[in-house]
Amino acid sequence: MCGIVGVVSNNPVNQLLYDALLLLQHRGQDAAGIATNHSSMFSMYKANGLVRDVFRTRNMRTLQGNTGIGHCRYPTAGSSSEEEAQPFYVNAPFGITLAHNGNLTNQAQLKEELFKNDRRHINTDSDSEVLLNVLAHEVQEAADGYKLDTDAIFKAVAAVHRRVRGAYAVVAQIAGHGMLAFRDPFGIRPLCLGMNEGEHGTEYLVASESVALEGLGFRFVRDIAPGEAIFISNDGTLHERQCAENPSLNPCAFEYVYLARPDSVIDGASVYATRLRMGEYLADKIRKEIPVEEIDVVMPIPDSSRPAAIQLALKLGVEYREGFIKNRYIGRTFIMPGQNMRKKSVRQKLNAIGSEFKDKNVLLVDDSIVRGTTSREIVQMARDAGARKVYFASAAPPVLYPNVYGIDMPTRDELIAHGRTNEEICAEITADRLVYQDVDALKKAISDVNPALKNFEASCFDGVYVTGDVTPEYLDRQESARHKGGSKGVEDAATNQLNLNRPVTAE
Amino acid sequence: MCGIVGVVSNNPVNQLLYDALLLLQHRGQDAAGIATNHSSMFSMYKANGLVRDVFRTRNMRTLQGNTGIGHCRYPTAGSSSEEEAQPFYVNAPFGITLAHNGNLTNQAQLKEELFKNDRRHINTDSDSEVLLNVLAHEVQEAADGYKLDTDAIFKAVAAVHRRVRGAYAVVAQIAGHGMLAFRDPFGIRPLCLGMNEGEHGTEYLVASESVALEGLGFRFVRDIAPGEAIFISNDGTLHERQCAENPSLNPCAFEYVYLARPDSVIDGASVYATRLRMGEYLADKIRKEIPVEEIDVVMPIPDSSRPAAIQLALKLGVEYREGFIKNRYIGRTFIMPGQNMRKKSVRQKLNAIGSEFKDKNVLLVDDSIVRGTTSREIVQMARDAGARKVYFASAAPPVLYPNVYGIDMPTRDELIAHGRTNEEICAEITADRLVYQDVDALKKAISDVNPALKNFEASCFDGVYVTGDVTPEYLDRQESARHKGGSKGVEDAATNQLNLNRPVTAE
Amino acid sequence: MCGIVGVVSNNPVNQLLYDALLLLQHRGQDAAGIATNHSSMFSMYKANGLVRDVFRTRNMRTLQGNTGIGHCRYPTAGSSSEEEAQPFYVNAPFGITLAHNGNLTNQAQLKEELFKNDRRHINTDSDSEVLLNVLAHEVQEAADGYKLDTDAIFKAVAAVHRRVRGAYAVVAQIAGHGMLAFRDPFGIRPLCLGMNEGEHGTEYLVASESVALEGLGFRFVRDIAPGEAIFISNDGTLHERQCAENPSLNPCAFEYVYLARPDSVIDGASVYATRLRMGEYLADKIRKEIPVEEIDVVMPIPDSSRPAAIQLALKLGVEYREGFIKNRYIGRTFIMPGQNMRKKSVRQKLNAIGSEFKDKNVLLVDDSIVRGTTSREIVQMARDAGARKVYFASAAPPVLYPNVYGIDMPTRDELIAHGRTNEEICAEITADRLVYQDVDALKKAISDVNPALKNFEASCFDGVYVTGDVTPEYLDRQESARHKGGSKGVEDAATNQLNLNRPVTAE
Amino acid sequence: MCGIVGVVSNNPVNQLLYDALLLLQHRGQDAAGIATNHSSMFSMYKANGLVRDVFRTRNMRTLQGNTGIGHCRYPTAGSSSEEEAQPFYVNAPFGITLAHNGNLTNQAQLKEELFKNDRRHINTDSDSEVLLNVLAHEVQEAADGYKLDTDAIFKAVAAVHRRVRGAYAVVAQIAGHGMLAFRDPFGIRPLCLGMNEGEHGTEYLVASESVALEGLGFRFVRDIAPGEAIFISNDGTLHERQCAENPSLNPCAFEYVYLARPDSVIDGASVYATRLRMGEYLADKIRKEIPVEEIDVVMPIPDSSRPAAIQLALKLGVEYREGFIKNRYIGRTFIMPGQNMRKKSVRQKLNAIGSEFKDKNVLLVDDSIVRGTTSREIVQMARDAGARKVYFASAAPPVLYPNVYGIDMPTRDELIAHGRTNEEICAEITADRLVYQDVDALKKAISDVNPALKNFEASCFDGVYVTGDVTPEYLDRQESARHKGGSKGVEDAATNQLNLNRPVTAE
Repeated sequence: MCGIVGVVSNNPVNQLLYDALLLLQHRGQDAAGIATNHSSMFSMYKANGLVRDVFRTRNMRTLQGNTGIGHCRYPTAGSSSEEEAQPFYVNAPFGITLAHNGNLTNQAQLKEELFKNDRRHINTDSDSEVLLNVLAHEVQEAADGYKLDTDAIFKAVAAVHRRVRGAYAVVAQIAGHGMLAFRDPFGIRPLCLGMNEGEHGTEYLVASESVALEGLGFRFVRDIAPGEAIFISNDGTLHERQCAENPSLNPCAFEYVYLARPDSVIDGASVYATRLRMGEYLADKIRKEIPVEEIDVVMPIPDSSRPAAIQLALKLGVEYREGFIKNRYIGRTFIMPGQNMRKKSVRQKLNAIGSEFKDKNVLLVDDSIVRGTTSREIVQMARDAGARKVYFASAAPPVLYPNVYGIDMPTRDELIAHGRTNEEICAEITADRLVYQDVDALKKAISDVNPALKNFEASCFDGVYVTGDVTPEYLDRQESARHKGGSKGVEDAATNQLNLNRPVTAE
Repeated sequence: MCGIVGVVSNNPVNQLLYDALLLLQHRGQDAAGIATNHSSMFSMYKANGLVRDVFRTRNMRTLQGNTGIGHCRYPTAGSSSEEEAQPFYVNAPFGITLAHNGNLTNQAQLKEELFKNDRRHINTDSDSEVLLNVLAHEVQEAADGYKLDTDAIFKAVAAVHRRVRGAYAVVAQIAGHGMLAFRDPFGIRPLCLGMNEGEHGTEYLVASESVALEGLGFRFVRDIAPGEAIFISNDGTLHERQCAENPSLNPCAFEYVYLARPDSVIDGASVYATRLRMGEYLADKIRKEIPVEEIDVVMPIPDSSRPAAIQLALKLGVEYREGFIKNRYIGRTFIMPGQNMRKKSVRQKLNAIGSEFKDKNVLLVDDSIVRGTTSREIVQMARDAGARKVYFASAAPPVLYPNVYGIDMPTRDELIAHGRTNEEICAEITADRLVYQDVDALKKAISDVNPALKNFEASCFDGVYVTGDVTPEYLDRQESARHKGGSKGVEDAATNQLNLNRPVTAE
Repeated sequence: MCGIVGVVSNNPVNQLLYDALLLLQHRGQDAAGIATNHSSMFSMYKANGLVRDVFRTRNMRTLQGNTGIGHCRYPTAGSSSEEEAQPFYVNAPFGITLAHNGNLTNQAQLKEELFKNDRRHINTDSDSEVLLNVLAHEVQEAADGYKLDTDAIFKAVAAVHRRVRGAYAVVAQIAGHGMLAFRDPFGIRPLCLGMNEGEHGTEYLVASESVALEGLGFRFVRDIAPGEAIFISNDGTLHERQCAENPSLNPCAFEYVYLARPDSVIDGASVYATRLRMGEYLADKIRKEIPVEEIDVVMPIPDSSRPAAIQLALKLGVEYREGFIKNRYIGRTFIMPGQNMRKKSVRQKLNAIGSEFKDKNVLLVDDSIVRGTTSREIVQMARDAGARKVYFASAAPPVLYPNVYGIDMPTRDELIAHGRTNEEICAEITADRLVYQDVDALKKAISDVNPALKNFEASCFDGVYVTGDVTPEYLDRQESARHKGGSKGVEDAATNQLNLNRPVTAE
Repeated sequence: MCGIVGVVSNNPVNQLLYDALLLLQHRGQDAAGIATNHSSMFSMYKANGLVRDVFRTRNMRTLQGNTGIGHCRYPTAGSSSEEEAQPFYVNAPFGITLAHNGNLTNQAQLKEELFKNDRRHINTDSDSEVLLNVLAHEVQEAADGYKLDTDAIFKAVAAVHRRVRGAYAVVAQIAGHGMLAFRDPFGIRPLCLGMNEGEHGTEYLVASESVALEGLGFRFVRDIAPGEAIFISNDGTLHERQCAENPSLNPCAFEYVYLARPDSVIDGASVYATRLRMGEYLADKIRKEIPVEEIDVVMPIPDSSRPAAIQLALKLGVEYREGFIKNRYIGRTFIMPGQNMRKKSVRQKLNAIGSEFKDKNVLLVDDSIVRGTTSREIVQMARDAGARKVYFASAAPPVLYPNVYGIDMPTRDELIAHGRTNEEICAEITADRLVYQDVDALKKAISDVNPALKNFEASCFDGVYVTGDVTPEYLDRQESARHKGGSKGVEDAATNQLNLNRPVTAE
């Protein structure tokens, strides 16, 4: 998962893009980059690290221009090098920069096509570089010599949709022409459009989440539709076109569960509101499985499960308390020759308030359970703090399948729910009781908020891959590559640090 | 306000001190420093910035030794230079390093005494350097030539108590001897002791807050008593002595309101529990002033008012919701020649979830109101988000007086409550109703949790300065110095950045 | 002027390229870069600064692979940004990286062709990016689909020679194929080939100067011929081909005068030996113009005029002394608000030894005189140090015309010799007598050492531009662009610092 | 060996001190520091590295004030940590900062006295910290309470002279009073005084060498006499006093041989002139040992032996040529996991011009021979370049004894001349003949230039330690400590890099 942003303004956009990336930082803390366009030239700067650490005054000074795109990267297996930070750039045709959120499922085949047919060299393992080169090739095909109009651009996007499989929300710039944004025909990854009437005219901004718009004073216009492309030419004119043949909206359910900020509205559904609903449905299920009078207190695992827990407590009529406090400041573990390292654990990220647990039956609510190791540690912390009984509830259903659309998930054998019954999982995490949300309830929690939403990309819960091209063989290949990558054994210290910054709740 | 930590171990302490400072980072994000002792030598590193930014591997490598002290600094007026980062060091007698949390009220007089009587040069404006030199002088007086025993050390602390006025919690090291910690005779600033039975023997750790102990796996032993000193010699022996003549415990009420982490226990009272009680007392008062049925929802201003708001909602029987989301990632504003700066405001730090406000009467709960500018902006945000009526409640009483014991507060004319009635304040922040906690209720909220606590340093609410030496003339002098300092007009960009990291709620 | 290097080895080449760039650092201190090739991927790092400041361990770690190219850049007007550091990269066809020394004279026309015909976007003002794209286009044309053999590569170079005008010595890499090096058909800029029989097989290295070979333990094989290309495939096979139609060798005379290291051998002539000969010819001329008995001592302006001065003194039978000492450590001038800057001058770079000047008639020898301002300051220093008379001799003839082949020269109106008689120049620099080398003598000094050298690129002395396409209009255009660039008035502090590092003698 | 500078001006001195350190950088490239005084406060910044790398704009900005001192450090065994960079600071009495060039021979005893009598803690292994504390203690004794006049300061210096043994040239500042400079009673290390009549009044500057004065536009006033102290109060008044009982002038002979810049004048003798004389005396001796007609050419090993070689060639009537070129740009050797390191040697620092050696009998002239390993490599390079015979001459006599006065020398068993005959040394370095200067000739070379100089600190040549306290036991102790330090095995990469920057000639 990553965050993307693109803007066409009539003022310098460097600070604006920087601020936008801060607002999207929760979508990726691994690397950040900005590319701006001035006259027909690009300036670009990208590096590993948090937005606030990546950009210095000297970098910002070079990022001139009134249009630009930005990206913040989530660390994914096999793609954490500085050279794979986004945006990417190619110089032919016209000069194009691109940044994307998602994952292509036919990357290997595209790479071969690009080389054999177009002799385009892909220098990294990033699928974004592949996507950029497919787009570049299609723009080259669609253009009339060195002349390029909006029709040709949309034609190129249509061709991209035909060639590319997977999930992708994209921002791109064509030097001297304008900023292009589009979303895959299944609408898996989010992308929305905002505008601002400034004193010098209209500015347009597209971003992964609506919080970026709001935080920057832009008015939310609408979500980009599945398969749709918009192009904002450098003179500020907005062009819109549906470029896919059979588009359908299947937003990623995990965005609502955990990934997105609660104050974002994605495809017409307030994330916060869907989390409240998840809490309500979960309450209904808990009521069936645990006598409510045995629960003294409901507690969230901060931060993302808080709305679900609040509503769940209200629905159950049980007191809501916040017994776990999150450590906001996370640092590094220095490796000193000849010194032993003190053992680190989830206790570095969370602390329990003893008085809130003492002699109580607590119901802990998390947004989801992935590997389960964190859940087990948290249950133990609750017991150490004096809890009599520890019940555990997950606002999302069991995570059973890998995600191939841009969310970094462990392989199936690392998923605690894979191949285990509810009782076995409960035993693994040493809870007294464990209650998972049902898949239907999760989907209903979202469509309750926006009834227009009928289909979801929820493959990690239900195993259905909406793009239709994900075979068991593909999954095996991915996992084996992942194991191979992981078996390098060496983990970059910087990456390690960044992972520590991630919210604790998705483990 | 600052965070301090000291440790005597039988293993290298650099990583431990670093981790401790991260756990105390909420007490000061302006600068950080560590001094360690190995054989009879000190290693020290300190700089402006967050703990994670200050210390690099090369610094950690030099911080050798099994004992050490650490400090994180809150930015205070006139004391934000790198040279005033703590700890401080003097080489005579014996070599002493010191870090402190608090503020001396007779610093000017001490500085003159030190120069005239002891010819000790104070190179910065930091009162910590003054405190260190007073301690050094008294150790010199108390020692028998180059021999120094525990009695002499405690005698020196007793002399410090006699000479120094104000609030101070101190950690210090005497080269080759051990680590000293003491607390002023009024017990204003917190300090507690933990221990850990490691495989190589007992380790002792003192810190501003109990969270640092817990987070590092140390067992909480007890709070250091007002006026008490403890000395842990390098061989690991703990010595304890009451060094003040009439000690009395007057913990700072603001620690419970806002400064401390909720999961800390200070002077026997769980901070979280006191905040819950503040919510209850506040509920009682609100019930008298606002018809409860007119309140649709209770919302905290995150993060510190959350416990009070949860309990307040429960007590009132009104739904609790979190309509404001805090931006966790804050960056810089770059000054680019020839570029206009986009207007920044509290909206950079907070975002409102529209659906939670739409057509509702909301009761916003903050921990306190200082300048009032943030409160006004927040009220406006609530209205912009669609709120019908906006009520505002403060878990702390009106802030009316300056703090001279180490909390950085604006001058009286900048305090919104100074010279205004409740109605006038309400009008200033444009709320529909405003309810403040009563001073007695605040104190009761704390002593309910630990009935042994009877007196509090609550000067900013009640104007009573427990050390007895704070005259109106002193306050005038302080404020005029502050205005002068402020009128420099130039604010360091780095400092500015750090202020942005502070929780929004105390403005 | 710049330094370039390329290597195909059977071991990692990062350190080797770094060391090579240090040995070529005198050819350019403005920026440095390295691109390596491993399997079919490139790694690249480049930045402004000296080689020792640009590359850190973390950069070197990413520069993996057994083949690579490197570049160090001389600051030229309008091309000092970080984005214009070399090597450059394009991804189609095949992936190509390139670095070059020289200057193209038909850059504007090529840029337009590239855009109109090939839709290739040039993102900087660097002619190296243009050259790379011409090469890339020609490789694309010559290749058979995605198959590329050596013939096609040489065919592409031949096409480059046909399209491109100016001086260029080039190193390039084609991903997965090998390293290509070629020299313009007039052989203006130097390039030589070395080899090393290592334990794992043969390594080849090409570099601007033979010192890079020697310093790295490579055996000098030969100079690359004008118009010739060599291609070393990744398996270590060397291919050679003459790719130009009417190649002729016209080495740049300024290399021998000043640019190259004295211990290099360029196109068969030892630079040191040519400088000795320049001294001899200059002695002959001086003998005619100044009574030798009136010269007490001969002194070089360090460092580059030393060989000429030694031999000149020997020929005249006058004592040789080194009265000027060069300051090797040059730093920055910090701009402090509200502080006056102390006046800086050539005295920061040179110091005179008083006793060597006192009451003597000194003959100062410099390699050349460009603007004349430094010469005047040096004459004044000699007088201040007590010299009775100050004679000045230049080992090169008067600099009268701009250089368009890669040497950064001021515009004609800034050249002291432009439009002035010998007497007028002498008066300008306030010397008692001034003697310039004759143009023929300079050429003879070089061809004496290698009689095979018959023609030279000596345009700044004789106004003859060997490539035949440099019109007065072209020169006017260049100079007006230069003035415009210069009139920005702002000079980057870093660049300023680097210029200070340049030897003083070419001003 | 180190460089020191101190200045009292009526303008900010930060840039001036920085420029002075650049001019003294040849005396120490290991670390650099500056301390300035403004009102009664000090600002200080110091770190490992070259002057140009140590000081950034942010550091310079803090170094406010019109008086200050600076230091650049030569790396010495056991003293290369950042914490031992100079200046040092103590806060009692008055606040004093100090920097020094030299070495104390009774450091251990002083350290014990300081601790036992004064309880002054010394936190590093630096003798400068010891010297500062002795001075501080004596100022404390001499002062009348908190009043301090010039008499008391000079009294304190006199007491320092009585307590301290060794060589020391010192600059110090007393906060709010002024700048103090003094030289040990034997006048071993150099120190001179300059003045400048600026528009705002008189500025005084003291520095290790006269080049610093000249380069900054100050007029040389005189050398500080042995045992003398000067004090320049902050109002600009110069006070002078002889503070030693039996001062005598014994300048270090090695300054003339190698350490000092040739354009400096030390104790009345031009360094350049003494090196010319060394060449003449060496010519006389060579004439006796080698038939002059067998020598085809005389060549210096650059840079420091150049004057001696020029004059030697003139005296012998043999042609002078510069066949070795020094690489001016030196970088790092990166340690890459899994990569072999290419062998490094003197060839990285020097390169031979083949044509100058081919079939010739060359006489190489170096300033001195210490370990001999470099000499052997250079002889080999000359042979590889084609020399028929290689004669070697040293402008200094055999180095036989350690230096205890501040020059970092290897232990006796590492000195090639220790315990070997001339023939054995010649065989070791594989030369055809080897000629050393005689000790008397060296001394005469200096006193010829200034006949007032009669005695020299030349212990490494003649074994006479002028301070009278250096016993064989002391030397053994020093060497054993050195061996121990060396056996740590770990050498800091930064230090390593810096050593590479040192001229090659003293090995």
